[in-house]
Amino acid sequence: MMDEFALIEKFFARRAGARDDVRLGIGDDAAVTRVEPGFDLVIATDTINEGTHFPPGTSAHALGHRCLAVNLSDLAAMGAEPLWCTLALSIPSGSADWVDAFASGFMALADAHEIALVGGDTVRGPTSINVTVHGRVPADTAIRRDGVRAGDGIYVTGRFGCAAAGLAMLSGAATAAEQERSELVNRFLYPAPRVREGRALVGIASAMIDVSDGLHVDLSRMLHASGVGAMLDVEALQLPVESVDRFGRARALGFALTGGDDYELCFAVPPDREPELDRVTSGWECGVARIGRAGRDREVRWLDHGRVRSIDEPGFRHFVTADL
Amino acid sequence: MMDEFALIEKFFARRAGARDDVRLGIGDDAAVTRVEPGFDLVIATDTINEGTHFPPGTSAHALGHRCLAVNLSDLAAMGAEPLWCTLALSIPSGSADWVDAFASGFMALADAHEIALVGGDTVRGPTSINVTVHGRVPADTAIRRDGVRAGDGIYVTGRFGCAAAGLAMLSGAATAAEQERSELVNRFLYPAPRVREGRALVGIASAMIDVSDGLHVDLSRMLHASGVGAMLDVEALQLPVESVDRFGRARALGFALTGGDDYELCFAVPPDREPELDRVTSGWECGVARIGRAGRDREVRWLDHGRVRSIDEPGFRHFVTADL
Repeated sequence: MMDEFALIEKFFARRAGARDDVRLGIGDDAAVTRVEPGFDLVIATDTINEGTHFPPGTSAHALGHRCLAVNLSDLAAMGAEPLWCTLALSIPSGSADWVDAFASGFMALADAHEIALVGGDTVRGPTSINVTVHGRVPADTAIRRDGVRAGDGIYVTGRFGCAAAGLAMLSGAATAAEQERSELVNRFLYPAPRVREGRALVGIASAMIDVSDGLHVDLSRMLHASGVGAMLDVEALQLPVESVDRFGRARALGFALTGGDDYELCFAVPPDREPELDRVTSGWECGVARIGRAGRDREVRWLDHGRVRSIDEPGFRHFVTADL
Repeated sequence: MMDEFALIEKFFARRAGARDDVRLGIGDDAAVTRVEPGFDLVIATDTINEGTHFPPGTSAHALGHRCLAVNLSDLAAMGAEPLWCTLALSIPSGSADWVDAFASGFMALADAHEIALVGGDTVRGPTSINVTVHGRVPADTAIRRDGVRAGDGIYVTGRFGCAAAGLAMLSGAATAAEQERSELVNRFLYPAPRVREGRALVGIASAMIDVSDGLHVDLSRMLHASGVGAMLDVEALQLPVESVDRFGRARALGFALTGGDDYELCFAVPPDREPELDRVTSGWECGVARIGRAGRDREVRWLDHGRVRSIDEPGFRHFVTADL
């Protein structure tokens, strides 16, 4: 049987030359790639650590998916097309089975998004996974978080609070059998980065952010960076039925507003672009909803059945991290 | 007093917009950069972990230098000009002083090489530092490791065995006072990536590799990738005087051939390019030496005073890593 480092070498080697714009893949001191003229290069980096970003014992297949997904979500939030990635992996000894499952989860998502693994580095240690991703956008079209103007509609993709509810189930609020068939748990383990949706919003969205730390806190970041506020309506949010059934509406709404790990997109659209938005989003399986409008007043207010709802929690923060 | 995460935010923020080709620095979901037409993009990633790549207690200032230096060395080995980097940092709690010193070591080297920090991620955990670097070369000129042809001269920059001798001193073979003033220890702590030298070799060297795991093993990798061998002469190597004085010639030579962490360049030059090489290298402070010639026979042989010397050790391998 192969040991884990032999497995990793095989895993890393598989992707060399998978794209035309990779001139030299893994195996030299560095990879050589080419950015087509007329495009900007988008670069993001994110680490996930056992005990901080995922519970000990989380499936290696899910982690392979997740470490790439959270980075693809950053590219999605810029409107970028994925190109290449590098992987720095710290794993404990005796983890050959782990590596096999990890590689399979990683590669399934990489193949789905046609992103090539061009660099890798592995070391023995506590489980920690860093991925750096590269994408491209037509020059000067990257969607920043500071472009919201008063009057812009505030939109979100998908449903909120799935991942936080799923994590609550994994943390003891459900039996193993319930966990197995729960879509909430599945959404925590296998976040779906909204890459196609993000790319389609280039030229339409005035600002965008991906929701990793919680809708309220990430949306507030986008609004604050733009120097505006917003009036928002929680009734416009799609709450996951399973979460409402299991935890009740109040807690499901709490998960939606302040739970993390949803990896949906939150974006702003100027009024004159909203007809174009409707056209573009009509076929989106994940759904899209306008949850409010930006205003000059810098406060971020949520209405629930017409009454202002206070957001008690500071928003999900990975308890020991500073993601910058 | 600022805590370490506030210090890190300050550290990360400082570099935004430091280069014209950084369109959007740290602070959004991703950085946006631009590669000038006519250039290829070179990408390398390398992690250093406490206990594996450096002894516990190594100065944070030295680690800030080192984590970037080992990556710049990979760019140097491709002949690339440094552009941008990202940093993923895992640090234990209560490390504000550590961060301050680390940032200062990192930035001194970054500034010297005009490389911009464009992405960062920090998490609490055992000390582990991953850097991903980006550089550029004129299109199709990156120097790979598989281009050596029989007859090419085999060259090295600088002196070998300094770092391994320095590490031996740090590991107990010397007093603190001796360590303090030893150039060998300094060379281990502050490797000098040969970036300018590597860039000057574009169009001259047929192949190149940086020496991180030991001269014999890295040179052998370059020769094997090229399908050739070489006859080499240990007498052509510059041995550090301090190492010979302290450890004797035999051990100093062992450090030079099989010690790691020197981060010098090893490269091949076709005979018709050797006059050009002499011209280019005449002003190099680090020195350069031809240590042999490549041959069709795939063996890698070292001569010492005219007799073949066997290389006993398998070359330095970070004891728990697979660097790919």
